Amino acid sequence: MDIKIQQVETSKIESVDFSNLSFGQVFTDHMLVCSYTNGEWESPEIIPYGPMTFEPSARVFHYGQAVFEGMKAYKDDDGDIFLFRPDESIKRLNASSERLAMPALPEEIFHEGLKQLLHLDTEWIKKGFGNSLYLRPFVIATEPAISASPSNDYKFIIICSPAQSYYAGEVRVVVADKFSRAADGGVGYAKAAGNYASQFYPTSLAHKEGYQQIIWTDANTHEYMEEAGTMNIFFRIGDKLITAPTNDRILDGITRKSIIQLAKDNNIDIEVRNIKVSEIREAAEKGELKELFGSGTAAVVNPIKGFKHKDFTYELPELESTYASFFKEKLMNIQYNKSEDVHGWRVKV
Amino acid sequence: MDIKIQQVETSKIESVDFSNLSFGQVFTDHMLVCSYTNGEWESPEIIPYGPMTFEPSARVFHYGQAVFEGMKAYKDDDGDIFLFRPDESIKRLNASSERLAMPALPEEIFHEGLKQLLHLDTEWIKKGFGNSLYLRPFVIATEPAISASPSNDYKFIIICSPAQSYYAGEVRVVVADKFSRAADGGVGYAKAAGNYASQFYPTSLAHKEGYQQIIWTDANTHEYMEEAGTMNIFFRIGDKLITAPTNDRILDGITRKSIIQLAKDNNIDIEVRNIKVSEIREAAEKGELKELFGSGTAAVVNPIKGFKHKDFTYELPELESTYASFFKEKLMNIQYNKSEDVHGWRVKV
Repeated sequence: MDIKIQQVETSKIESVDFSNLSFGQVFTDHMLVCSYTNGEWESPEIIPYGPMTFEPSARVFHYGQAVFEGMKAYKDDDGDIFLFRPDESIKRLNASSERLAMPALPEEIFHEGLKQLLHLDTEWIKKGFGNSLYLRPFVIATEPAISASPSNDYKFIIICSPAQSYYAGEVRVVVADKFSRAADGGVGYAKAAGNYASQFYPTSLAHKEGYQQIIWTDANTHEYMEEAGTMNIFFRIGDKLITAPTNDRILDGITRKSIIQLAKDNNIDIEVRNIKVSEIREAAEKGELKELFGSGTAAVVNPIKGFKHKDFTYELPELESTYASFFKEKLMNIQYNKSEDVHGWRVKV
Repeated sequence: MDIKIQQVETSKIESVDFSNLSFGQVFTDHMLVCSYTNGEWESPEIIPYGPMTFEPSARVFHYGQAVFEGMKAYKDDDGDIFLFRPDESIKRLNASSERLAMPALPEEIFHEGLKQLLHLDTEWIKKGFGNSLYLRPFVIATEPAISASPSNDYKFIIICSPAQSYYAGEVRVVVADKFSRAADGGVGYAKAAGNYASQFYPTSLAHKEGYQQIIWTDANTHEYMEEAGTMNIFFRIGDKLITAPTNDRILDGITRKSIIQLAKDNNIDIEVRNIKVSEIREAAEKGELKELFGSGTAAVVNPIKGFKHKDFTYELPELESTYASFFKEKLMNIQYNKSEDVHGWRVKV
């Protein structure tokens, strides 16, 4: 597959302090851009990362026709580059696109584009457990026309941002009882741009109360735990791990499904079923709620220290040995080529 | 208020065929741009309409942090320019922004920006009943950072597109029974970009069955009629007019609220209340459903010829005298300065 590459004259890598990175603010030297027009995807190009021109009437600005993925590239001690389950990312990107009436991207453009981009920007992927290159493939509607209908033109773009081991600080969450993230029959299962902006305001209200994130509940009754917007959610009651099934409101997280598999592999009792908020409150009151953690690409596994639901608050106990750290280590060992990979999740690029 | 104006050297107006305009595809010579950075709105500028540069990491592309308004400018026979209830548009723009954690725009920038832009592009507003200049004020998140949190930088932009009398063709609608537009506690009441892309796929399925639009129902039960995505919806049963109350799933349409007022002014029996799909089906079966129409800025009032709900289909009767044409004429007479304006809706700019 032919990808035209226009290299930067001078890398900006020397100006970057890799020991002091804010998430998603510094981008590598290059990006991949592929245009869709007249019903087909053109040849992708790799060009220097930088500002691009768009008509102010481009549909993405008006109607939110945009989808994305979040991925990471890892480097092992030999300097080889790996991705984690990239086949799942392109499948989900195309499922998201379908729901937003956007054209599917050929898998070859995705895989080959990532490969060539990562080899070109390989110096930006630092060795060391926890270091990674965060990858953001996304598709946006670019046709300059403001009738409320699907765009005829799109751009698929991959930008890359170096990331350190992710520590979000102590995370406490509010369980939603008024605001909602997604409707039955809506786009909650898609990585659609509009699903994110709609969470910012309720999350800002949570911040004011000292909570960092929200666990969304079903919009109809607010009785069932769903997901946290940028993470899927797991509950440990006694030694049993529970997470909600995916549906059209919940993102089918790749870290989530990997944890479910790892639980099975390691004889951890895992249930994928609807979870009532009242069940979690009762387990907390009885002292049976041992852990609460989120899963996602950025943090891998993110332990949650406490939660609030209406007037009920609860601090999780401090455990010596947690499922959260068990799964995080298992996953990172696979991602960084430090352990066997029986499921073939690790892909060398 | 100081607005820096950079005029085009040569207008492109001569190249535009005003008798053959597709909606939202041709833009006037100028646009207004106003940036928000470091916690404040800068001075707006009017510059030639054209491509703008954005970082590919701008949050609008990833998280759909974008809101808009739809308005029209009208010209009367004397060449004076009028807007229709612009105070309602800026109020709603700021309500939309608040829900998406975006900063409020000072009303003065909105009003004075529109005024100066319209006077500069006055030749693009053609006289004649039905001709107008469609105005698209919108705010987008421009900060180049892909952490999932509100942007620190925004742009408020107004672009303008000349429009002819809107005729959408014969419109038939599907009443939704599976897909949804908005959740309780979500952003359906806001003119948020993401609310629109999410309708494109279900609407494309309706197209395949010969229907042009969807009447959305409540996501919880699909038992209540809500709105049509780009229009609010009115039902006429006998001589009674009914429309759904606004809530956090339904856009508070300016044309909708004007029709409610005009109905009261003209002693038309109007009820603003929840409307069961079953009630409308029964009224149709009994021959009591006389009219079904949508209201919105683009079409003003858009009669609907038929609808489908599950396996039930219905063609509306052809009436000699309709509420739809009554309200359309009343509204347009106010908008084009052809009748008295007792409520002060018409604003000369």
